[in-house]
Amino acid sequence: MENPFDDIYFMKKALQEAEAAFDKGEVPVGAVIVIDNKIIARAHNLTELLNDVTAHAEMQAITAASNYLGGKYLLKCTLYVTLEPCQMCAGALHWSQISKIVYGARDEERGCMNLGTKLHPKTEMVGGVLAEESSQLLKRFFIERRNLN
Amino acid sequence: MENPFDDIYFMKKALQEAEAAFDKGEVPVGAVIVIDNKIIARAHNLTELLNDVTAHAEMQAITAASNYLGGKYLLKCTLYVTLEPCQMCAGALHWSQISKIVYGARDEERGCMNLGTKLHPKTEMVGGVLAEESSQLLKRFFIERRNLN
Repeated sequence: MENPFDDIYFMKKALQEAEAAFDKGEVPVGAVIVIDNKIIARAHNLTELLNDVTAHAEMQAITAASNYLGGKYLLKCTLYVTLEPCQMCAGALHWSQISKIVYGARDEERGCMNLGTKLHPKTEMVGGVLAEESSQLLKRFFIERRNLN
Repeated sequence: MENPFDDIYFMKKALQEAEAAFDKGEVPVGAVIVIDNKIIARAHNLTELLNDVTAHAEMQAITAASNYLGGKYLLKCTLYVTLEPCQMCAGALHWSQISKIVYGARDEERGCMNLGTKLHPKTEMVGGVLAEESSQLLKRFFIERRNLN
């Protein structure tokens, strides 16, 4: 039998969060954190609404997952995020010792890979899951915003 | 007349925050954010109490200062922090476009400088202000913790 809980399944949930951000006028990035095929945190970017540069989807998801687990280390957890994490979020993920990061679209300019942010040695990172969908949502957001100005 | 509001003055306030962290059993790092010689945010590390790796002094101070200013950009602000910021905090400070970062002690292993975290081009960073006091407080914390175990 096919396992319904694959990377595509969870990235779709992260994309739903990104769409929720879009609807609020936020740069559409969403994230979920999963342990044993169970979603323990969902979040989307809220930097505009909260007037707070630290309110990226990943940061809120880390806080929520830690709260759920009652501990600050996200061992055995996987983060699904629609866009490659930035330096701040990758730095937070380093501290969390999270087991795995799965991202959608690459962020060539502000993503952690090109900027060389150090991840924890325990952390595996893979990308490109539903990258096109994530990327299209971001493009649509910036086109609509440009047309509003 | 001497200006009482110099880097030493504000770093002493950040050190008071670090001491508050120490008293709670937290790694003693403290921070304040200043605009026009006025402190608009004070914070200390609370990662243990909150079970949250994102609860570094700088992150909380950024959120508090943004809240005070009603905007997410910390233009014309200076952060005083007793320890060189990590990748996460430096990444957050990049997003905030803060004008100046003044730190106390260097963090050779986990600090943003050796790890090459990119700061915003608008941001000036200087270090070494009350470095010995900050460093001694951290050393005392780790010695006491080792003796407890």
